[in-house]
Amino acid sequence: MNHFGKRLCVSTFGESHGAGIGCVIEGMPAGVPLHVKNIQAWLERRRPGKTPYATARKESDTVQVLSGVFEDLTTGTPIALFIPNENQKSSDYGAVKELFRPGHADLTYWKKYGLRDYRGGGRSSARETAARVAAAGVVEALLEALNIRVQSGICAIGEVLGETVDFEHAKASEIFALDPTCEEAQKATILAAKNSHDSVGGSALVRIVGAPAGLGEPLYDKLDARLAEAMMGINGVKAVEIGEGINAARLKGSQNNDLMSANGFLSNHAGGILGGISSGAPIELRVHFKPTPSIFHAQPTQDIHGNSVTCNLKGRHDPCIAVRGSVVAEAMAVLVVADMLLLNMGSTIEQVKKLYM
Amino acid sequence: MNHFGKRLCVSTFGESHGAGIGCVIEGMPAGVPLHVKNIQAWLERRRPGKTPYATARKESDTVQVLSGVFEDLTTGTPIALFIPNENQKSSDYGAVKELFRPGHADLTYWKKYGLRDYRGGGRSSARETAARVAAAGVVEALLEALNIRVQSGICAIGEVLGETVDFEHAKASEIFALDPTCEEAQKATILAAKNSHDSVGGSALVRIVGAPAGLGEPLYDKLDARLAEAMMGINGVKAVEIGEGINAARLKGSQNNDLMSANGFLSNHAGGILGGISSGAPIELRVHFKPTPSIFHAQPTQDIHGNSVTCNLKGRHDPCIAVRGSVVAEAMAVLVVADMLLLNMGSTIEQVKKLYM
Amino acid sequence: MNHFGKRLCVSTFGESHGAGIGCVIEGMPAGVPLHVKNIQAWLERRRPGKTPYATARKESDTVQVLSGVFEDLTTGTPIALFIPNENQKSSDYGAVKELFRPGHADLTYWKKYGLRDYRGGGRSSARETAARVAAAGVVEALLEALNIRVQSGICAIGEVLGETVDFEHAKASEIFALDPTCEEAQKATILAAKNSHDSVGGSALVRIVGAPAGLGEPLYDKLDARLAEAMMGINGVKAVEIGEGINAARLKGSQNNDLMSANGFLSNHAGGILGGISSGAPIELRVHFKPTPSIFHAQPTQDIHGNSVTCNLKGRHDPCIAVRGSVVAEAMAVLVVADMLLLNMGSTIEQVKKLYM
Amino acid sequence: MNHFGKRLCVSTFGESHGAGIGCVIEGMPAGVPLHVKNIQAWLERRRPGKTPYATARKESDTVQVLSGVFEDLTTGTPIALFIPNENQKSSDYGAVKELFRPGHADLTYWKKYGLRDYRGGGRSSARETAARVAAAGVVEALLEALNIRVQSGICAIGEVLGETVDFEHAKASEIFALDPTCEEAQKATILAAKNSHDSVGGSALVRIVGAPAGLGEPLYDKLDARLAEAMMGINGVKAVEIGEGINAARLKGSQNNDLMSANGFLSNHAGGILGGISSGAPIELRVHFKPTPSIFHAQPTQDIHGNSVTCNLKGRHDPCIAVRGSVVAEAMAVLVVADMLLLNMGSTIEQVKKLYM
Repeated sequence: MNHFGKRLCVSTFGESHGAGIGCVIEGMPAGVPLHVKNIQAWLERRRPGKTPYATARKESDTVQVLSGVFEDLTTGTPIALFIPNENQKSSDYGAVKELFRPGHADLTYWKKYGLRDYRGGGRSSARETAARVAAAGVVEALLEALNIRVQSGICAIGEVLGETVDFEHAKASEIFALDPTCEEAQKATILAAKNSHDSVGGSALVRIVGAPAGLGEPLYDKLDARLAEAMMGINGVKAVEIGEGINAARLKGSQNNDLMSANGFLSNHAGGILGGISSGAPIELRVHFKPTPSIFHAQPTQDIHGNSVTCNLKGRHDPCIAVRGSVVAEAMAVLVVADMLLLNMGSTIEQVKKLYM
Repeated sequence: MNHFGKRLCVSTFGESHGAGIGCVIEGMPAGVPLHVKNIQAWLERRRPGKTPYATARKESDTVQVLSGVFEDLTTGTPIALFIPNENQKSSDYGAVKELFRPGHADLTYWKKYGLRDYRGGGRSSARETAARVAAAGVVEALLEALNIRVQSGICAIGEVLGETVDFEHAKASEIFALDPTCEEAQKATILAAKNSHDSVGGSALVRIVGAPAGLGEPLYDKLDARLAEAMMGINGVKAVEIGEGINAARLKGSQNNDLMSANGFLSNHAGGILGGISSGAPIELRVHFKPTPSIFHAQPTQDIHGNSVTCNLKGRHDPCIAVRGSVVAEAMAVLVVADMLLLNMGSTIEQVKKLYM
Repeated sequence: MNHFGKRLCVSTFGESHGAGIGCVIEGMPAGVPLHVKNIQAWLERRRPGKTPYATARKESDTVQVLSGVFEDLTTGTPIALFIPNENQKSSDYGAVKELFRPGHADLTYWKKYGLRDYRGGGRSSARETAARVAAAGVVEALLEALNIRVQSGICAIGEVLGETVDFEHAKASEIFALDPTCEEAQKATILAAKNSHDSVGGSALVRIVGAPAGLGEPLYDKLDARLAEAMMGINGVKAVEIGEGINAARLKGSQNNDLMSANGFLSNHAGGILGGISSGAPIELRVHFKPTPSIFHAQPTQDIHGNSVTCNLKGRHDPCIAVRGSVVAEAMAVLVVADMLLLNMGSTIEQVKKLYM
Repeated sequence: MNHFGKRLCVSTFGESHGAGIGCVIEGMPAGVPLHVKNIQAWLERRRPGKTPYATARKESDTVQVLSGVFEDLTTGTPIALFIPNENQKSSDYGAVKELFRPGHADLTYWKKYGLRDYRGGGRSSARETAARVAAAGVVEALLEALNIRVQSGICAIGEVLGETVDFEHAKASEIFALDPTCEEAQKATILAAKNSHDSVGGSALVRIVGAPAGLGEPLYDKLDARLAEAMMGINGVKAVEIGEGINAARLKGSQNNDLMSANGFLSNHAGGILGGISSGAPIELRVHFKPTPSIFHAQPTQDIHGNSVTCNLKGRHDPCIAVRGSVVAEAMAVLVVADMLLLNMGSTIEQVKKLYM
């Protein structure tokens, strides 16, 4: 219920205002280099408190490696990571103790569990995603050993849609913008929302380059199905597209089919996946985030006793969760691809013989 | 790898041109009425060969219940269903034995497994979805006992987008059209594609009414994540949206948040899911299908030896897979909701005591 | 709930007096030879009705391969097998419709499910094990390709304990006796029980030769734990021993440790498993079956209304389930080892590189 | 791979000489009281360094609860526990860095992973079982709420076999002896082994009282199969018996069947399980531990280069792992029963209606 992956499995734990958050990575092959600085670099990209486009909550997000490593190599045993919470302000949440914040999981956790940790959303807080990003910081080394690269960036903020895709530019951008020509308009959109005590949605693009053909287990662990599950499971995601995505539903077969020659595919409408299995072409997906539900307007809502009340939020929140969310989407892609790489081993008797004979 | 669900688990098997297709349903509670005619009614909705909008392949799709039932009640043991193939024409496929049909899984199965059953796509054929639909015909009785209803229909064919949503109309429509005012235009779009030896994409809407609050297991079996996985795993699906979907990424928080009063939600942008858990509001999702890859144009492609060749298809194919695909999407929603209902049992100590003390 | 294995997964279905029994094998690598005669040979060893030492129920146990094979090779997709029931005599069971047969699962199925298929034990019948044996008939080819051999035989019937272990002799023995010197005494024990309308217990030995070192996933998919689970899950098994087994609890460390030289192990008290992982030495386990609960004495019992009643059984039953049970134990060992072989792939970065680079 | 349980799932992590050991418990219902002192009480029973019958390694085994609890109640979210290592002496292990200790997992980890953390056995150390015991300290509260009690004790040390079973006596005994009349002989056996630089095996009995009928999911999550898996997965266990165990294989059906009257069972040879499902009678199992492999004799072995060498161990070791192992067996029984309780929810439509309507 709280783990992700079948052969490479990540369990996360922790709450927004508890001792901290962490994860356990199982199934990581032995002999992979593991350096804390790599994990820290991933966390740094997701870390709050750095720019005007993100929440002011300051967390150093310093990771502790509790197990699974010996002399800087993975040992094949579970790798536990822990990131202590440092800057929680639980006092901000006294006022919402008994009400359901609109757009949040307050109501549904209450209905499901009959109680909830109301401080900062508890377990439902996006703070949990730091654990996933830390896991990606470990697992990425496996993909690197195979020359597989995962990239991400922001393609839209509200109605400002980018066109060009420049992952190098995104790396240096404070909002991970893929299109340099509309980065400023996208930043302005975020600040306008923030200044009106509101928030705004956005969209991220993830690309996986170098993945071998053959990843994905038909019929119910298809690569696209697993990616969709992974992405839709990120806080605030409301839509996932593979390749041409929704636009494919508007096209004719003669427009959407990717023709081939001896040299390979002539186009990539499919986004690198056919029949749920990677084709060797770049894998592309778009992930759409709703606007942050925490806004600083008076909002009608319900309390736990069923009364109509008004929600007035305090606290520090991202005006646009898509920005830091794009790093999480990239992290989840790393985890899915690594899982699928390992699951795919043994698909043929030739592979089995190659390892055992 | 070939099963779906955690507490209510469906495994399917079979190929387009083998003996038949079938499934095993595990975890179905005992004491649920099981009547073959209900399964048959589901299969009838998906069955090919009935209208000009679907493939001419004629299959009676007669289901055999091999196990798990005694005196018309489920026994709690595995329910095996089998649907023999009747109308396969393997001779149609001799010409494609050694080439990769564009837009199909031929290349990826070849790359993954080193061999493939080339007759009608083998396992990757959409014929497999009959087994899922049959499973829904069994599982639906569980939802009915709880007054949960799942509905589906077509909201778009190519660029003809419906606006109104009338599930009753869809039931009687040959293309399951939700909007009566554009049904004819949608039909015409399909026939135009068919007559030009082409195909066209389309979009389906699925709505789940009456599901209790509390379904979905955070963080990695979230209801929306599981629905996304289920839908993206259907043949030809390239995008999944929950509630407001992609549009949420264009909005502000003040527009997208669902406010509440003592009477409940005042809107449903969230599509009935918050934090991955059902809220009690109707659950809504849109599923987008690519155009059928099988078209009757000469298409450049590659063969299994790596040569450039031309693909000229024969055979009988749906000009728009979205139509029959909408029934599959509805079936998958039935399976996900039933699984989540069972998984949710035991979320609180009160529930556990209620059953055991 | 009704499937076994993680990477190579077998789901079974069917009841004693329903249409038949079957299974679905998922995760079998592509390209493995699959011949019906091999499955049939396994079924023949387990088949009832051949000797005075087994039930008189006559079943031809003719298997149908419903999917997953193309041109006599596995395709990597699910392999469904079905064995129709032929010789059920449901009329034998009218008298036990409302009572709980001592030693059977009648009471527990009733308590769990609130209803039961009382004909021949329904799902709880040992007839289900034919499906497992058929699965082994498919999977064995994978082990053969790696020169791994699984063997079994009977080491004890009641109090007649064999000493020598001769698997070749067992193959030709009607009761699969491992020790030729006490085979006749073991046969006489079975017949004596049968003639007094009683039954008798027995013990089987399973040996796996040629399995590579490294199989088993610590800490919770240990090879010995998985073997214990597999064996204890066979109808009537009440104890499982690995290597020295219970006797290890009586020894000193200096007696039980397997010392080594450059040539390998000097003994095999461990039964080929250390720390849950195979060591390369032969894997040995003993499996202990209770006597058949179906006996033809008048037995006090309870009925479904809670009354004291007397159970007088009719029907045809094995006087000693251990005999045919030993074939099931061998089959389960085949399934566990194959699963572990596939799960082990990807344990090191070197293995991953070997397959992908 | 490193988690245990399906609906209530425990993942453990950590090594003997790393930062510490811990676990994540998923699927625990919300609203269960969680007090650190209860966990600590379980750890205290397993804690080393207290008596002459256990290793002298001194660990305070102080647990930290990292997540999943709010105001002393479980929240339904993952509960992470961590126990820092304090008293590791890695210097003891320099001499064994390159050799395989007889009876240990050194060789198999090396073969599987190509490297190993040689300090104290790393992940294969029995120190990992502290994490399981801590998990039981959390989960036990769920069983207590349902009046289910799990008990354990030692029934044999080497060849000194106890006859009477007194769980109250066992609680107060330094070696958890069940039979007061042979406790001294059992203690003497341990000390004799210790004084001769050797070790000795032993056997534990676990009894579960108050478990409702209906636990266990046929056919492949049978309660006895899951118990066998859990027990055989404990370090050093070589045999598991349910109820009559091996002795059942020596009996006749007329001796082994548990007859019934209107008042219930008249005997309990079955050990409370029929057809893999609990019957309501007490569940009983015996678990057999090999002697500690670490002994202080010179032992011929192999090194990682394949040479014959002599192993001379230092360090601090239990002379009889069965003693503290019995607490681990009890802990695993707690985890299995709780998992099965939750898995069983939803076995009938009546149960489902009871919760949802």
